[in-house]
Amino acid sequence: MQSYKPVFSVDLRAIQANFTVVRSLLSPAVAVSAVVKSDAYGLGLERVVGPLWEAGCRSFFVASMEEAIRLRRRLARADIAILEGLRNGSLEAYRERRLTPVCSTPAEVAAATLAAIPYVLNLETGFGRLGLRFDELRSLLHTNPRVPELVMSHLACADDTGNSRNRLQKDRFVGMCALLAPSTPRSLAASAGVFLGADYHFDRVRTGSALYGLNNTGLEPNPFKPVVRLSARLIDIRHVQRGEAVGYMGTFLADRPTVLGIVAIGYRHGLAWQVANRLSAEFAGRSVPVIGRVSMEYCAIDLTNIPARLARIGAFVDFISATAPPENLARAAATVAQEILIRTGGACARRYRFAPSGQHPWA
Amino acid sequence: MQSYKPVFSVDLRAIQANFTVVRSLLSPAVAVSAVVKSDAYGLGLERVVGPLWEAGCRSFFVASMEEAIRLRRRLARADIAILEGLRNGSLEAYRERRLTPVCSTPAEVAAATLAAIPYVLNLETGFGRLGLRFDELRSLLHTNPRVPELVMSHLACADDTGNSRNRLQKDRFVGMCALLAPSTPRSLAASAGVFLGADYHFDRVRTGSALYGLNNTGLEPNPFKPVVRLSARLIDIRHVQRGEAVGYMGTFLADRPTVLGIVAIGYRHGLAWQVANRLSAEFAGRSVPVIGRVSMEYCAIDLTNIPARLARIGAFVDFISATAPPENLARAAATVAQEILIRTGGACARRYRFAPSGQHPWA
Repeated sequence: MQSYKPVFSVDLRAIQANFTVVRSLLSPAVAVSAVVKSDAYGLGLERVVGPLWEAGCRSFFVASMEEAIRLRRRLARADIAILEGLRNGSLEAYRERRLTPVCSTPAEVAAATLAAIPYVLNLETGFGRLGLRFDELRSLLHTNPRVPELVMSHLACADDTGNSRNRLQKDRFVGMCALLAPSTPRSLAASAGVFLGADYHFDRVRTGSALYGLNNTGLEPNPFKPVVRLSARLIDIRHVQRGEAVGYMGTFLADRPTVLGIVAIGYRHGLAWQVANRLSAEFAGRSVPVIGRVSMEYCAIDLTNIPARLARIGAFVDFISATAPPENLARAAATVAQEILIRTGGACARRYRFAPSGQHPWA
Repeated sequence: MQSYKPVFSVDLRAIQANFTVVRSLLSPAVAVSAVVKSDAYGLGLERVVGPLWEAGCRSFFVASMEEAIRLRRRLARADIAILEGLRNGSLEAYRERRLTPVCSTPAEVAAATLAAIPYVLNLETGFGRLGLRFDELRSLLHTNPRVPELVMSHLACADDTGNSRNRLQKDRFVGMCALLAPSTPRSLAASAGVFLGADYHFDRVRTGSALYGLNNTGLEPNPFKPVVRLSARLIDIRHVQRGEAVGYMGTFLADRPTVLGIVAIGYRHGLAWQVANRLSAEFAGRSVPVIGRVSMEYCAIDLTNIPARLARIGAFVDFISATAPPENLARAAATVAQEILIRTGGACARRYRFAPSGQHPWA
């Protein structure tokens, strides 16, 4: 059965290359973990982790126990840290599968200590969310907790390299880490933090979005290779007269005789309703505006400037490509590129380029 | 394993009641079809169709052959129309499973005619998208096509009851139907079209969003029962001082000592990044603002006005409820309520209230 589902294709070699780029931006003494939470940002956890292992990645962060179990099936020897901490799953599950909870409360640290389970300690340094604050950490240390495998915190404004809050968080992090045993490995930076300078790298960087080709800090050119392509098929071509309306509420009115392409992608596939009349897709190497409202299963594009011999039903229209990064779509949808990957990756047919064959599991 | 995944719960009896409400708004001569495309707007096609059959629904519209096959497994005797027409699947698949393509081009009608497959004919009357236009229909009729089971079109502006384009589309529809055999059943209205008056109902109404409790035309009170509840667990409670920032880029600054609730729902679960600082959730019957940016797996709410005895870790916070309709969330996310249902229903743990047990398949 031929499928007209939009195709979300993932270039696994580009993910490997991006891991190597992150690696090359850091001193050899700094370790790199891959963040594969949220199903590897929508790209498919199971398919992404093998190539990362092959590229030299040995440590992974997932969101939940459920994701950790899926990852453990693929990589028997990887280090796996679970960002949700001890909320889900029995202590047994952590021990048996050698999973490391990221503990964000004194109670979690106490539980990990009692059960003699290795853990990562998460500190709150200004994100205003999960993690132990200075006073909590100080009180905790009186209780003789187990020494963590890693102490970490998360920057709120790393995308904005000039933001003074970055230094504030770093200084707080250094101050809190000073309460711990000096040999405790430290991790503050995620993908964007890599570009804040070596004093933000500490012992380990946790990189997610950079692996998937996102350009958090808006560097030109993007140091990371494009990973994702999102394409959908042209299913009909219509000619509308000047003055005719297109789509719900007639938000597009043709101001000239217009060649309309109907494309089999809509908001049920993660193409935000909001991008209507605000985004251009790519067809045959040319820019084609998305016109009229995006419907549940379809949208319309303006093909008037495309030579008739190229506009063929069944051809692919690109919404994310090497030349149209996820950031474009994010801008039109008034969101972040991470949300675009998760929404479209989860709702379209995922395909993998350069998928190694027959060598799973890796480790 | 306890799950902290947000819960998207569906009240199946409310869907049945909404079918009955639609039924009651129409003359007994008008038939009602259920639109269950896009996995029943994210509510779960397999779980929704049985209760609809039980409520008297015999005809269903799905998006694709894939959905049709899933539906046929549940309902052996239902009428199933496939909106994508003949694009996917062999003609055999339509015949064997007694599926009806919605044909939107002369070529599709020709193929259905040749293969002697019953079909629905879709007319373009001003939506500016799929469907035969007047000239195409006129030419087609010279070729002796098979008589369709149903002729349909779709209104672009039915949500806006006063919009003059509704009448224009209806008049075009009547005009085009006049070219067909007078006994051909006709269908123009979807959920919102029900409220445009009896002259929009013709022989069949196709209702989707009303079944799922949406209030397309903004009627007060909503004539349809709420169907969906979206809840997520409070996983931490923190106290922040005046002047402290919360979340990415510190977009929320506490202007008083603030009790912060961290909730296990983020944009990976379909809670749009965009709703930050623009939405209130519900907790213990009170309104609690979503503050700071929504992260991938979490968001923060302001619990300062909640009595301390009620704010307990593990408790549920509602983002959609009987008193907080999907339309609220849609407004904050600058989209339509249909997209909200699809995004959250597809990404959260779906639960069903009043699920009949052991009587599948229905028919």
